[in-house]
Amino acid sequence: MRPLITLLTDFGTADGYVGEMKGVLLSRAPEAMLVDITHEIPPQDIDAARLTLARVWRRFPPGTVHLVVIDPGVGSDRAALAVKSDGRCLVGPDNGVLSPALLVAGACAVMLRVPPGASASFHGRDVFAPAAASLALGTSLETLGVTASQPLIRRTPEPQRIDDGVLAGVVIGIDRFGNAITNLMGLRAGVVEAAGTLLPLRRTYADVEPGAALAIVGSSGLIEVAIRDGSAARQLNLTRGSPVIFRTLS
Amino acid sequence: MRPLITLLTDFGTADGYVGEMKGVLLSRAPEAMLVDITHEIPPQDIDAARLTLARVWRRFPPGTVHLVVIDPGVGSDRAALAVKSDGRCLVGPDNGVLSPALLVAGACAVMLRVPPGASASFHGRDVFAPAAASLALGTSLETLGVTASQPLIRRTPEPQRIDDGVLAGVVIGIDRFGNAITNLMGLRAGVVEAAGTLLPLRRTYADVEPGAALAIVGSSGLIEVAIRDGSAARQLNLTRGSPVIFRTLS
Amino acid sequence: MRPLITLLTDFGTADGYVGEMKGVLLSRAPEAMLVDITHEIPPQDIDAARLTLARVWRRFPPGTVHLVVIDPGVGSDRAALAVKSDGRCLVGPDNGVLSPALLVAGACAVMLRVPPGASASFHGRDVFAPAAASLALGTSLETLGVTASQPLIRRTPEPQRIDDGVLAGVVIGIDRFGNAITNLMGLRAGVVEAAGTLLPLRRTYADVEPGAALAIVGSSGLIEVAIRDGSAARQLNLTRGSPVIFRTLS
Repeated sequence: MRPLITLLTDFGTADGYVGEMKGVLLSRAPEAMLVDITHEIPPQDIDAARLTLARVWRRFPPGTVHLVVIDPGVGSDRAALAVKSDGRCLVGPDNGVLSPALLVAGACAVMLRVPPGASASFHGRDVFAPAAASLALGTSLETLGVTASQPLIRRTPEPQRIDDGVLAGVVIGIDRFGNAITNLMGLRAGVVEAAGTLLPLRRTYADVEPGAALAIVGSSGLIEVAIRDGSAARQLNLTRGSPVIFRTLS
Repeated sequence: MRPLITLLTDFGTADGYVGEMKGVLLSRAPEAMLVDITHEIPPQDIDAARLTLARVWRRFPPGTVHLVVIDPGVGSDRAALAVKSDGRCLVGPDNGVLSPALLVAGACAVMLRVPPGASASFHGRDVFAPAAASLALGTSLETLGVTASQPLIRRTPEPQRIDDGVLAGVVIGIDRFGNAITNLMGLRAGVVEAAGTLLPLRRTYADVEPGAALAIVGSSGLIEVAIRDGSAARQLNLTRGSPVIFRTLS
Repeated sequence: MRPLITLLTDFGTADGYVGEMKGVLLSRAPEAMLVDITHEIPPQDIDAARLTLARVWRRFPPGTVHLVVIDPGVGSDRAALAVKSDGRCLVGPDNGVLSPALLVAGACAVMLRVPPGASASFHGRDVFAPAAASLALGTSLETLGVTASQPLIRRTPEPQRIDDGVLAGVVIGIDRFGNAITNLMGLRAGVVEAAGTLLPLRRTYADVEPGAALAIVGSSGLIEVAIRDGSAARQLNLTRGSPVIFRTLS
């Protein structure tokens, strides 16, 4: 199979940092297919990157290498990781951003060596991209470093049960359309309370009139608060951390 | 030929929706070359996407599959289309965004089946990307669904003739440089009136002094109002829908 | 080797101009791998593009073709260039943006012919992309045009020595994280004065407390002024052109 490497960063593209990483990848793995996931994660927002990674990493075929660089601790003593999980490989800093893959049964992780001469402020280019290229070319994880026994894990908070059939959740992210994505998962018939508004759980946006608010089970199974043809975040003043209550219909 | 699939959406990249679609495409067509057209169409702006698609779709070689997802009606009863036109294939919602290809003589369109289990809010991932991958692998259009007899068409408004050699047009889009692109096409020597200003039709930006306004025939044949080294949209207060008059020089 | 073409522009992606260029490239070189460097250079900012190009062009393997279109002078009598330098090829306008490659010993440049029918406002599509595709397919530089004897060069200003061990530099760019990148290079132990603040030169961001200002040698060897987990540009009010003083520690 052709080597396949995805890139997920908070670098933007204009400064050339992503370009440098792509150059390193293609110098080492000239036949690789590079795929941009995004470079528009807000600067240093590990949780936003973690949620984006959670959405995408297993959508790619086994053998894919995901290069993930959101790295506010670059140059500190945080470890640099390579991870193998469910047939895919991931490379990135040990700050919790790789948690979606680390939490899968059977995942293993090693601590990458920092090559002499590596920049203390750009491990994406000098540590992570070379490791990603090696993995894409078939190098085994074990040859890249020693086992990382306790990688840092970051988790989406669990909803709290506050009464029979009543769960207290939070908004964990706002998407480009202004949809407020919550941590409420695996729920069906019920009513969502957000920003003082009661919203029946609907199947899709088109089930309400334009401009009306609704709740739906979003495409990754999480409940979202949305406004049809509008921005729930702006119009209901929802941000990351806003409380949301779910009541089961009985 | 290597399968070639382009992507054109209003998703941005940060939320991972584009990443999910790329994962689906490469899981099904692992040898495909993916090419980003853009993910920065303003949210739900079907006409902006339609004009961008009009510029690009026939620049790609025959056999290319264009995946176009600007889909405010996802989950409603709007149809999901696959189109074959002038040797290229296109996949996207039946909301007019695919009109540039549908209007070409010989175009044919089918209505895609929505697979069981598809998310009601993300047909890009669960309906359109699988269809695009199938087409890129050589599946024939007919096997993907039944003929769509009346796909929805959206058109750029035609200029109105208001006197001998005088046409009334409108601004149909503003580009990143602040150039105001109009619906005036196929015209040569003349004067353009926009925002109360008379602008002779020039060959290119460099034909006037920096900071001066001008009109040119843009790279797709439409008349544009521009300011050299500046933004015509901002400085002349032009927006989509602003009126523009063209007077032929006699 | 598979043809490899990178793209670096100030076009954004939404308007479809980049899409048109990609279509031209893949129509002419269907097996090419296209790699986006960036399309988010601020409109017409030749120096920003030049610095980004300087970072990336030699990171790619020999044989790579870099297509660089920041072209405020399109349609004027500025030349269109193809350059061969250090085993890579570059294509772009003769406005100084290609200086990083032109300044390397042994670089050679030719002036591209403008094909009849080329748009006067979009040489990226009609002049530069076709030339890039030809070079990627192995066409020799010489067959594309006559030698350009005096290509325009733009240089980063040199720091000025103002006393023993004291250099006066300037900020030459601000990156996405708000780091202020200066023209001070090849320096080690010392103190940087910026915006009235004295900053010891550190190894990396993690060497100071969150929120504290510091100076580091950045990943391309230039001294940067940064704020850990913050924006030096915003918090210290630094912009391109801001003065910076370096004092060697003795």
